[in-house]
Amino acid sequence: MTTTDILAHLDANEDAIRARYFDLLRIPSVSAQPAHADDCRRAAEWLREELTAIGFMTEVRETAGHPVVVAHHPGPGGNVPHLLYYGHYDVQPAEPYELWTSPPFEPTTLDGPNGPRTVARGAVDDKGQVMMWLSALRSCHEVAGGPPCRISVLIEGEEEVGSPSLDAFLAQHAADLKPADIVVVSDTNMWDARTPAITTRLRGMAYAQIDLYAASRDLHSGLYGGNALNPINLLSRILGGMHDENGRITLDGFYDAVPPIPNALAQQWHDLNFDERRFLGEIGLSTPSGEKGLPALQRMWARPTCDVNGIWGGYTGEGSKTVIAAEAHAKVSFRLVGYQDPHAIFDSLERFVKERIPEDARVEIQRFGAAPPVTVDEDSRWVAAARRVLTEEFGKPPVMAGSGGSIPVVASFKTILGLDSLLIGFGLDDDAVHSPNEKFDWACLMHGARSHARLLAELGGKA
Amino acid sequence: MTTTDILAHLDANEDAIRARYFDLLRIPSVSAQPAHADDCRRAAEWLREELTAIGFMTEVRETAGHPVVVAHHPGPGGNVPHLLYYGHYDVQPAEPYELWTSPPFEPTTLDGPNGPRTVARGAVDDKGQVMMWLSALRSCHEVAGGPPCRISVLIEGEEEVGSPSLDAFLAQHAADLKPADIVVVSDTNMWDARTPAITTRLRGMAYAQIDLYAASRDLHSGLYGGNALNPINLLSRILGGMHDENGRITLDGFYDAVPPIPNALAQQWHDLNFDERRFLGEIGLSTPSGEKGLPALQRMWARPTCDVNGIWGGYTGEGSKTVIAAEAHAKVSFRLVGYQDPHAIFDSLERFVKERIPEDARVEIQRFGAAPPVTVDEDSRWVAAARRVLTEEFGKPPVMAGSGGSIPVVASFKTILGLDSLLIGFGLDDDAVHSPNEKFDWACLMHGARSHARLLAELGGKA
Repeated sequence: MTTTDILAHLDANEDAIRARYFDLLRIPSVSAQPAHADDCRRAAEWLREELTAIGFMTEVRETAGHPVVVAHHPGPGGNVPHLLYYGHYDVQPAEPYELWTSPPFEPTTLDGPNGPRTVARGAVDDKGQVMMWLSALRSCHEVAGGPPCRISVLIEGEEEVGSPSLDAFLAQHAADLKPADIVVVSDTNMWDARTPAITTRLRGMAYAQIDLYAASRDLHSGLYGGNALNPINLLSRILGGMHDENGRITLDGFYDAVPPIPNALAQQWHDLNFDERRFLGEIGLSTPSGEKGLPALQRMWARPTCDVNGIWGGYTGEGSKTVIAAEAHAKVSFRLVGYQDPHAIFDSLERFVKERIPEDARVEIQRFGAAPPVTVDEDSRWVAAARRVLTEEFGKPPVMAGSGGSIPVVASFKTILGLDSLLIGFGLDDDAVHSPNEKFDWACLMHGARSHARLLAELGGKA
Repeated sequence: MTTTDILAHLDANEDAIRARYFDLLRIPSVSAQPAHADDCRRAAEWLREELTAIGFMTEVRETAGHPVVVAHHPGPGGNVPHLLYYGHYDVQPAEPYELWTSPPFEPTTLDGPNGPRTVARGAVDDKGQVMMWLSALRSCHEVAGGPPCRISVLIEGEEEVGSPSLDAFLAQHAADLKPADIVVVSDTNMWDARTPAITTRLRGMAYAQIDLYAASRDLHSGLYGGNALNPINLLSRILGGMHDENGRITLDGFYDAVPPIPNALAQQWHDLNFDERRFLGEIGLSTPSGEKGLPALQRMWARPTCDVNGIWGGYTGEGSKTVIAAEAHAKVSFRLVGYQDPHAIFDSLERFVKERIPEDARVEIQRFGAAPPVTVDEDSRWVAAARRVLTEEFGKPPVMAGSGGSIPVVASFKTILGLDSLLIGFGLDDDAVHSPNEKFDWACLMHGARSHARLLAELGGKA
């Protein structure tokens, strides 16, 4: 068997791939909606059958929530790499239905600028991306009797609701999963329809709630104004002081663990000619905000942020009420990069706030999400292999991209199992992920399947 | 007839005064609750009968809301002053009923540190205070056939809901009301149970809502954080910048029309030994906030303020949501003093905010309440007369007091009718106005009735 055979088999089986893909898309496995709990299980069972059919020992394992599909294939034996494929079978709710041009759980093929596309909830996120590597593994099975590497698979059903059961699951099944060498994740995007990407940076997060309390009750602003501490005034002052004139965050030591961007990488990103104006224009803005003097891609991929995600206090109804509130609240989150430690950031936030709290106020700081940033070693054998096969598949090298958001599961694999991740995804920015009329270009799906087949061959030494 | 006769008549008729007072308190004239609309009219009719009985030409006049009682008495004729008494017959809702120790609309006499007190909704605010001057006028009628001054009366039924119909009413009936020389208002407090007060300063108000808009929709803080303008960050920064380190308000020209406090007045207030710690301790605070280096009474009566009364934006539910909101909102009000013009303050606020709005944000500023501050001339004949009679009644001179809050009707009388007001009230700080178990000390009511009788005699030249 050669890579050429596998790729030819994939190309020859497009209709069969599409048929299986559509079967999976027809299952409305919406994890957020209890009415779809049985559908989530059906999707897990569908995957169990699919993996069993291509030679995997497969189990649907229970969690406190929706089940997880775990499968293993020993590969050819010998000293081959052990890859752990991660994906999720659950999807976002399809509401509002009236904005869909075709039923969200009846996959429909439409023509687009890049050829045919599939419109359905989950078309890309993540059923389409899972189908790419499942199809590559099936071709290995059908052409060569099995994959050239040792393979494990973990497909969860709660990614769209924050993977509440996953950390416990990883800890419980660590012995079974830990032997892998690398986690392969396809849940990210290409740079554009012709340019592949390897995501090597994921920003982390520290998300807190600040609760400020002052007087023992709401006060009349006439009688007490000028004497009583106003917690909303105070909260505004604290939050307003978290950035300086240049948009830099003023927490003590905040940038200590933020490494400079290597010149070569900065140049590579510069050469991408990212269209800042279009990026912002799509959301009704025209000028980058935040840290001054940096290009948009650096701000998004390699610089930390501080955003107030919510604020509330006092009278918020119609008209006026002359009240000095007894309390004020805000949700504040930091996107983290480099070696920033979310817990150190929480500590710094706490110091920053408490230093500004006068005698008569009381503050509580709740710590919610804490995810460390992830930086993938761009010189690792996994990234090197992915770079080679993507260059072959697309005729141009992949972009070493960042992601502004967190993918918490990647941090979990690192923290709980000690495993690095290789993130190669084939979505496009216009896929309408989480929105009505989610779509996945057929060319992307096939490029993805072929790339995964190439990667298997490359790593298994069968190029 | 002499003042002594009138005062003796008042003292001899305590039981009759109490009987009429209780009759009025039994009418649940809650202006805020439509179910009590008929009760409001009953209270107006009760007052019409009372005023008619003591020689007034009286009408119950319609408004868009609850009716207004207007009455006139020509007095003895000749060159006597013309006083316009203002009061309101409506009361706050009594809820929560379960916190009352006796039914709110069944007046009950209890013993207190200052002797008997009446517990009922409206006991002091404003039925009790209205009953004081009504009783003084009745004694004039019964002893001398009528008051020694020309008298007009205006008793409205919507004060507790912000007097929405009053300005239009004053304008409509200006010809009827404008001939008065001075408005007499009893809706304020004494300094303490033994010390009368004339309120000569009322803070004004400018109340605005700031609505900030940025992106065309809510954004994911991972994808857009660091590039997209966060309107809550911006709003915090703007609001947080409205005070300097010393608690002074930073709007351009804000203090231009704030006169210094005359030394003599500052000394008088100082000599009152106002207990700042107790004042703040009652609301769970210990240290004055706001402008540094000023005593609490000056902060409350003679200095302007800026309080954020409400703020909202973004995600305010449980837990975390990684959103950059498209909009953010705040309600901001200023208490004004001296010659500050609410509209000039609005203009300054608008400039302050707009100077800080970057290209990508849009702001709307709604102007709600605008009431100019009121400063009564302490050397006027009305204040001088009140000072003399209060000194006689209490054996000590009255405090020239301020009020932290606005009494909008006082500004309306000035603006619409060109009339100054004389504010002499006999409530106490512990009267639980607007709260369960509202009370009025019987001694205060009788002191008030006697003081009003003395004032009528003093101004009518019959002392």
